[in-house]
Amino acid sequence: MKKILVLGAGLSASSLIRYLLEHAVEFNWQLRVVDQSIDLVKRKLNNHPNGVALSFNALDKNERWEELAGADLVISMLPARFHIDVARDCLELKKHLITPSYVSAEMKALDAEVKAAGLLFMNEIGVDPGIDHMSAMRIIDEIRAKGGEITCFKSYCGGLIAPESDNNPWNYKFTWNPRNVVLAGQGGTAQYIDRHQYKNISYAQLFRRLDQIEVDGYGVFDGYANRDSLSYRPVYGMENIPTLYRGTLRRAGFCQAWNIFVQLGMTDDTYPMFDSANLTPRNFVNSFMPFNEAFTVEEKFQQFCSDYGIHDISRFQWLGLFDDSTVIGIENATPAQLLEHILVNKLSLAPSDKDMIVMVHQFEYELNNQRFSIESSMVNLGQDHVFTAMSNTVGLPVAVCAKLMLTGAIHETGVRIPISAEVYNPILNELERYGISFKEKELVLA
Amino acid sequence: MKKILVLGAGLSASSLIRYLLEHAVEFNWQLRVVDQSIDLVKRKLNNHPNGVALSFNALDKNERWEELAGADLVISMLPARFHIDVARDCLELKKHLITPSYVSAEMKALDAEVKAAGLLFMNEIGVDPGIDHMSAMRIIDEIRAKGGEITCFKSYCGGLIAPESDNNPWNYKFTWNPRNVVLAGQGGTAQYIDRHQYKNISYAQLFRRLDQIEVDGYGVFDGYANRDSLSYRPVYGMENIPTLYRGTLRRAGFCQAWNIFVQLGMTDDTYPMFDSANLTPRNFVNSFMPFNEAFTVEEKFQQFCSDYGIHDISRFQWLGLFDDSTVIGIENATPAQLLEHILVNKLSLAPSDKDMIVMVHQFEYELNNQRFSIESSMVNLGQDHVFTAMSNTVGLPVAVCAKLMLTGAIHETGVRIPISAEVYNPILNELERYGISFKEKELVLA
Repeated sequence: MKKILVLGAGLSASSLIRYLLEHAVEFNWQLRVVDQSIDLVKRKLNNHPNGVALSFNALDKNERWEELAGADLVISMLPARFHIDVARDCLELKKHLITPSYVSAEMKALDAEVKAAGLLFMNEIGVDPGIDHMSAMRIIDEIRAKGGEITCFKSYCGGLIAPESDNNPWNYKFTWNPRNVVLAGQGGTAQYIDRHQYKNISYAQLFRRLDQIEVDGYGVFDGYANRDSLSYRPVYGMENIPTLYRGTLRRAGFCQAWNIFVQLGMTDDTYPMFDSANLTPRNFVNSFMPFNEAFTVEEKFQQFCSDYGIHDISRFQWLGLFDDSTVIGIENATPAQLLEHILVNKLSLAPSDKDMIVMVHQFEYELNNQRFSIESSMVNLGQDHVFTAMSNTVGLPVAVCAKLMLTGAIHETGVRIPISAEVYNPILNELERYGISFKEKELVLA
Repeated sequence: MKKILVLGAGLSASSLIRYLLEHAVEFNWQLRVVDQSIDLVKRKLNNHPNGVALSFNALDKNERWEELAGADLVISMLPARFHIDVARDCLELKKHLITPSYVSAEMKALDAEVKAAGLLFMNEIGVDPGIDHMSAMRIIDEIRAKGGEITCFKSYCGGLIAPESDNNPWNYKFTWNPRNVVLAGQGGTAQYIDRHQYKNISYAQLFRRLDQIEVDGYGVFDGYANRDSLSYRPVYGMENIPTLYRGTLRRAGFCQAWNIFVQLGMTDDTYPMFDSANLTPRNFVNSFMPFNEAFTVEEKFQQFCSDYGIHDISRFQWLGLFDDSTVIGIENATPAQLLEHILVNKLSLAPSDKDMIVMVHQFEYELNNQRFSIESSMVNLGQDHVFTAMSNTVGLPVAVCAKLMLTGAIHETGVRIPISAEVYNPILNELERYGISFKEKELVLA
C-alpha cells in the first residue's frame, strides 16, 4: 500500500482529497491528511477506509518528520512560503513532492540535488500556475511540431463568480484571498512585450488599459496586465517572441470602478491611517477627498468618478461606502485593510454561491508564409461552496499528477513544472473527464 | 582665536563661508574648511587670512578626528546621512555642532547626553527646514502672546528659477538635486489635517490636487502637498490645530504637466527597464504607451495628455521627449533615472541664471471672538550661480547661528531646532539685512 501524505486540508484541497480517495482502492493507496483542525480533515475524508486523519503542526519539522519519513509521496498544500522547508525534508528523506505553487528561488536551487537523488519535485501544478502552463504548452508544442513560428501569445485567467450567482453590481465576489485582490497590481510595474516593443504599465494606469475578451456563452470580460509576463519567456522557450502578455480577467466594468480605489489611494497598504479604529466607511472615503463643505461626500465622490468616465456611483453606494452609522473598527489599519473589510462585508461568497474560473489563451503563428490564430478557452464552474472551481482547478491537476508519479508514468526528475508532454498530456486528458476542458478556435489570418 | 570647522564646501556652503569670513576679523575667528577638493575650498576662501583650506575625507573618523578635536564649533554641510557620525565624535570631544538637516531618530537619541555635556547640536537651520521654522514660530509666538488661538496654518516653500532667468515652457530649472525633484512625492501618501478631518493624497492625485498661491509681484504658484505635514504638530506645539498643511511651490502649470510623468510611471525608481542602455527618449516614452501603429508616439501622448486636461504637448516636445536620434545611454536604469537624464539636459541652470526661493505662511487665528488671517511671504533671488538663493537661505542662517553660539548668545543645550525666540529673533533680524525678509499681511475675517 502506497502512502500519500497531504499537508493542509483547506479550501483548495477538497477536490484533491476527493479524487485521491476515489482512486485509493483501485491503486491501493493510503491517504494520510494532516491539518491543524482534525474536524476539517475528518469531514474531507468522510470516513473513507483508505483515509487517515491526522492533526499536528505541519510547519514544525519535528512534528512532521515521522509522517514524511513514512510517505511514498508528499503533497504540500500549505501556504507557499512553507514549501521550501518541506522540500528540504523530502530531499533528506528521499521522498517525491508536489506543490501547486510558484517555484521559489530557494526551491529552484535544490534542482541538482533533487535530480541526483532521482526524485521529482513537481511545482506550479494548480490552475494559475498549472493548467495555464499545460494547456499553453500543448498548443505551443503542436505549433512547433508543424514547423510553425509563434509570434504572439496572450494568456488571461480570472477567478470569478459563476453567472448563476452573479447578483451584485460589481459582477464579482471574493473566491480567493481578498487581501490579494485588494493589493493586486502593486509591488511593481506591469511589463510585457508587444511586437518587439517593451511596454510598461504603471499602477495608476493598470486598471484603465484593458483588453476586451469575449468567451462564447459567457459574454465579455476585461483583462488587465499581470506584472510578470516577461518571466514566462524562458519558461516556455520563447526568448524572442514578439508579443507576450499575461492578464487577469474581470467582468466588464469592474476594472474601471476598481480604478477609483486605486486612484484615491484606498488600496495603499504602506501606512496606518490616523484614527483608523474610529473611521466609518464614510469617514474613510472622505479622508481621500478634499475638504469641501459645499458638497456631500457622495457629491465629491461622484465628481471624482466623472474624471474617470464613471457617472453612476450606485455600485459604490451598494458597497456601503458612504455609510456613517458604524465604524469599521480596526486599530492602526492601512487603507487596504479598511477597504478589504468594507468589501468583504458585501462581496463574500454565500454558501449557495458557485464560483467560476475562466482561462483564455490567444496565439498567433506563421507557417509556410501564412498567418494563423488559435484561441483556446476554458470555463469551469464550481459544484458548490466546497468543491469550488478554484478547488477543482487547483486540486485535480495535483491529484492526477500524484497518480502519474505513483504509477511510474513520469520519468523526469529534479525541481520541475508541468511543461513536458509526458506530464501535460495525461493530466489535461483526465481533467477533460472532470469538465475542465478547452475549446479551440483556429483561424487563417489575412 | 576661535576655530570654526566647516565640513563640506559644496554649493550650499558658499554663502555660509562668505559670511563667516566677513566676520572673522571682527570676532577673531579662524575658519577651517575641509572638502575632498582643495581647489574648491581655496576658491571659496579666496585667500582670506583667517581661512585655512584643508583636504581630507571628512567621512573618515580617523582623518577628521584631529581637526574636530581642535575646533570650537563644528558645522557639518555633509550629506545628511553623515551628520550622525560627526555628531557622535562631537559628543565625545565635547564640541558644539550645527547642521542644516532634519534631526534623524539617531540624532534625536543623543539629546540627553548632549544636554548633560552642556553642548548644543543645532539642526534644521537652513531654509526648509530652517527659515520656515523660525519665521513661523515668530508669528505663532506673537499670536499666542496676544492670547490668540491658531486654527489654521498652511506653509509653502519652493526652490525655483528667478523671473529674469525663467525662459523655458516649464517655468522651472533644477536649482537643487534633480533626483529629489524626480522622486518628489514618492515613498508615502501625503497626509494633512483640514478642519479636524485627516486627509490623504495618493501619489496618483498629488500633482492634481493643487492650491493656488499668489505672491505680490511674483504672480501665481501652484502648491502640492508634502508628505509630512502632521509631523509638525508636536514640533510647533500644535497638537490640536484644526488645519495644518505643508506644500511645495511650483509655477502654475508645472504640476499639471508633471502629473503626466507620474501617471505614465516615468518617475518610477523601483525597477531597471529592459534594454535601458539602448533607449532613445522616444522609445522611453513609447514604452509607457500601448502599441498602436495607427498613431505616432506624439499622437498617442497627446491623446493621453488630453485625459488630464492638457491639450498642447509643446512643453513635452521642447524637452526632446520624442527625439529618436540619440540614445539616453544608461545601463540598467530605472524610469526615474532615464527621465532625470532627459530633464537635466534641458532644465539645468546656465551660469548666468539666478534661482529663487519662495516661502509663504498662511495663518488663521481667533482672538476675542474675532477671526484674523496673516499671510507672510518671503522671496529671495540668487545673486549669481555661486551665491544662489539656495546657498543664501541655507548658509546664512547656519552662519548667523554659528556667530550666536560662539558669542554665547544662545543658552539652550541638547539636540535642538531653531524654534525658540532666543534663536529665531536674532537670526531673522540679521537675515533681513541680507535681503531675506518676510512681508506680512494681516486681515480681519468676517
